[in-house]
Amino acid sequence: MAAQTVASTTDSTTGSTVDLGPAAALSCRECGHRVPLGPVFACEECFGPLEIAYDFSAYDTEELRKRIEAGPANIWRYAPLLPVPADVATKPNINPGWTQLVKADNLARELGVDEGKLFIKDDSGNPTHSFKDRVVAQALEAARAFGFTTLSCSSTGNLAGAVGAAAARAGFRSCVFIPHDLEQGKVVMAAVYGGELVGIEGNYDDVNRFCSELIGDPAGEGWGFVNVNLRPYYAEGSKTLAYEICEQLGWQIPDQLVVPIASGSQLTKIDKGLQELIKLGLVEDKPYKIFGAQAEGCSPVSVAFKAGHDVVRPQKPNTIAKSLAIGNPADGPYVLDIARRTGGAVEDVTDEQVVDAIKVLARTEGIFAETAGGVTVGVTRKLIEDGLLDPALTTVVLNTGDGLKTLDAVAGTGLTATIRPNLDSFREAGLV
Amino acid sequence: MAAQTVASTTDSTTGSTVDLGPAAALSCRECGHRVPLGPVFACEECFGPLEIAYDFSAYDTEELRKRIEAGPANIWRYAPLLPVPADVATKPNINPGWTQLVKADNLARELGVDEGKLFIKDDSGNPTHSFKDRVVAQALEAARAFGFTTLSCSSTGNLAGAVGAAAARAGFRSCVFIPHDLEQGKVVMAAVYGGELVGIEGNYDDVNRFCSELIGDPAGEGWGFVNVNLRPYYAEGSKTLAYEICEQLGWQIPDQLVVPIASGSQLTKIDKGLQELIKLGLVEDKPYKIFGAQAEGCSPVSVAFKAGHDVVRPQKPNTIAKSLAIGNPADGPYVLDIARRTGGAVEDVTDEQVVDAIKVLARTEGIFAETAGGVTVGVTRKLIEDGLLDPALTTVVLNTGDGLKTLDAVAGTGLTATIRPNLDSFREAGLV
Repeated sequence: MAAQTVASTTDSTTGSTVDLGPAAALSCRECGHRVPLGPVFACEECFGPLEIAYDFSAYDTEELRKRIEAGPANIWRYAPLLPVPADVATKPNINPGWTQLVKADNLARELGVDEGKLFIKDDSGNPTHSFKDRVVAQALEAARAFGFTTLSCSSTGNLAGAVGAAAARAGFRSCVFIPHDLEQGKVVMAAVYGGELVGIEGNYDDVNRFCSELIGDPAGEGWGFVNVNLRPYYAEGSKTLAYEICEQLGWQIPDQLVVPIASGSQLTKIDKGLQELIKLGLVEDKPYKIFGAQAEGCSPVSVAFKAGHDVVRPQKPNTIAKSLAIGNPADGPYVLDIARRTGGAVEDVTDEQVVDAIKVLARTEGIFAETAGGVTVGVTRKLIEDGLLDPALTTVVLNTGDGLKTLDAVAGTGLTATIRPNLDSFREAGLV
Repeated sequence: MAAQTVASTTDSTTGSTVDLGPAAALSCRECGHRVPLGPVFACEECFGPLEIAYDFSAYDTEELRKRIEAGPANIWRYAPLLPVPADVATKPNINPGWTQLVKADNLARELGVDEGKLFIKDDSGNPTHSFKDRVVAQALEAARAFGFTTLSCSSTGNLAGAVGAAAARAGFRSCVFIPHDLEQGKVVMAAVYGGELVGIEGNYDDVNRFCSELIGDPAGEGWGFVNVNLRPYYAEGSKTLAYEICEQLGWQIPDQLVVPIASGSQLTKIDKGLQELIKLGLVEDKPYKIFGAQAEGCSPVSVAFKAGHDVVRPQKPNTIAKSLAIGNPADGPYVLDIARRTGGAVEDVTDEQVVDAIKVLARTEGIFAETAGGVTVGVTRKLIEDGLLDPALTTVVLNTGDGLKTLDAVAGTGLTATIRPNLDSFREAGLV
């Protein structure tokens, strides 16, 4: 399957004919085997994951910095570092990114972090209000380059909206597969963009199995599954989180980062992005620690980290943090490696702690996070209490989604008082 | 009441002692009577609305343009034109603005507008996902300048979230008043920021009456009601929409703007912002038309416009566009004046057309708008059909809120098919 799709988009003598900017080839993360750019994701030699290999050799550091700083207020300011053509910003795309890095002094006080040292990277500011817009935007450009006409994915939430919105903007057909019994609210959020929304009679695993089948079948011809056959491109979108955080800190790497783990791809790509900035000379080479955050109800990486294992034993997810509920995370072993190599850790929190952290973040900083944001803030608190995260050092905590999408998590929140419309009743309620 | 609160924040001999940047005084929109800056909103001479009078005399056009362009990617790039201190960007604030101006070529095709001529100003990208963040951010700075410690408002939706979030970030206490029987989802969205959320036994009018009573009472001392005693400052936030639209168009005024009408304040301040840019030389002086958009179920300004009246007869609102449902809009007469003076119009659409327009915008541009966005897009379509809006000219349509907050409006949207997890079932569904 892989070889066949590669052949259709490349020239066998000259290599890739697609223009994806500095992306030079696909390279196997395990064995280093290189293949031309194409809609493939697994190494034909060892079945390892393919990722983008770049040619950044032509860049002058200070020219590159100036070019980035003069770029648009979205991820395309980093186009020279992404698998996209140089004119990407002129094409119809939902243009995510350049979200706020919030100096969170109120939260810092609450968690015992030094003033001015704690930041929230708030990705709820993206067009469909999750970090998924970053990765889908990359997949869309790859889909365009490979001549695909349908953008597809399996999803139970954020990804469905991101794909639907991006496809609509870019004039692609979209077809999103979800379990048929998803909550009505989530169905509406995915359906509103007008693409095909197909319910599969089965659970999320059945949906994924079906999608893999479809990719290998003639029926799936012309289909770009953002997180399957376009995964190498898609995944690179997470690098932009690293780029933005460093640029927003004045081209400095933070000492500590707290990143949620679903498949683990985001964490590994943030590390990749930081390493690229160092190699390009855009930031000073200095040590940093990456911490991974999971919910206890889906904590395979956290369990493996604490047990000292190199492999991750799959779990059956049972947590309110559904956007992180991947029981068998593909990049789990890489996450373990990065957490250990950088001196970080992987930790998990209970659903109760997730809800509490959502409320703390909203109350202290006015940021209403999705459950995934409750996970990272909750884990940050735990890491500080356990002495693993240094409250005197610069720390960036990711919020990757929006509380409006997981309202159920804080459904118990309500009125502080009910009064009659007069001052006496107001005074009786003790509000002054 | 007015004179008393003015006296407490100003020096009777030298005028205002508060530093709100270029804001020089408050000036009555009706009679021109000036008073020093303070937490007052009605003229003591004629009861007309007070608005900010500025001193922009020191600005050099090209220096100002450079200063703006070098500013942050939020409303504070326009700090020299707003009632805020020069160092506003260093204070804790939720920093809204610089939202996307989306070139909406797909929607243009759908509505019969020339390619490259239609733009959506998408304010769902603000921190709490509505334009209210812009106005609340201004009110917050005024509250800080006047020494208030509690930020307050009456609200049934977007404003509650914006006030709760801004107060949390800035370390203010917040107290938001809502009708006691609001839907649970809206209560959660307002309550999550942890401020006081008080349900009033009564309807929205009762809530407003109570708030007015509270402002005049010692119990309300130290309270800044963003849209009452801080209204002159609050309202200025809408000017930033005009500034951003023009700067994002390359410092040009669009030929036509379609703006939703609730109180009418936003539309009048957009006009004020455009006039300021012209006077400052930042844009070329050219004609522009401003169109107002209402829902048929709350269309007092549209009815008055069509009848040729100068005054607005109040209506009892009955529409799904609840964020625009103000039956007795304070700035209605000014809106009529601006629509007529600029050659625009005021139009309304049915709830059915609102829902249809929400879906059209999502399907064509991947923007999921609140009902208010359905109103402006629906009205744009109607204005084109009626020959009132020229499809050959540059048009900017405002989307002021986020579809996630009014999911009920599109609740009928759902699955396009349900299949078993196999290719045969997929083929039978006719999806290839």
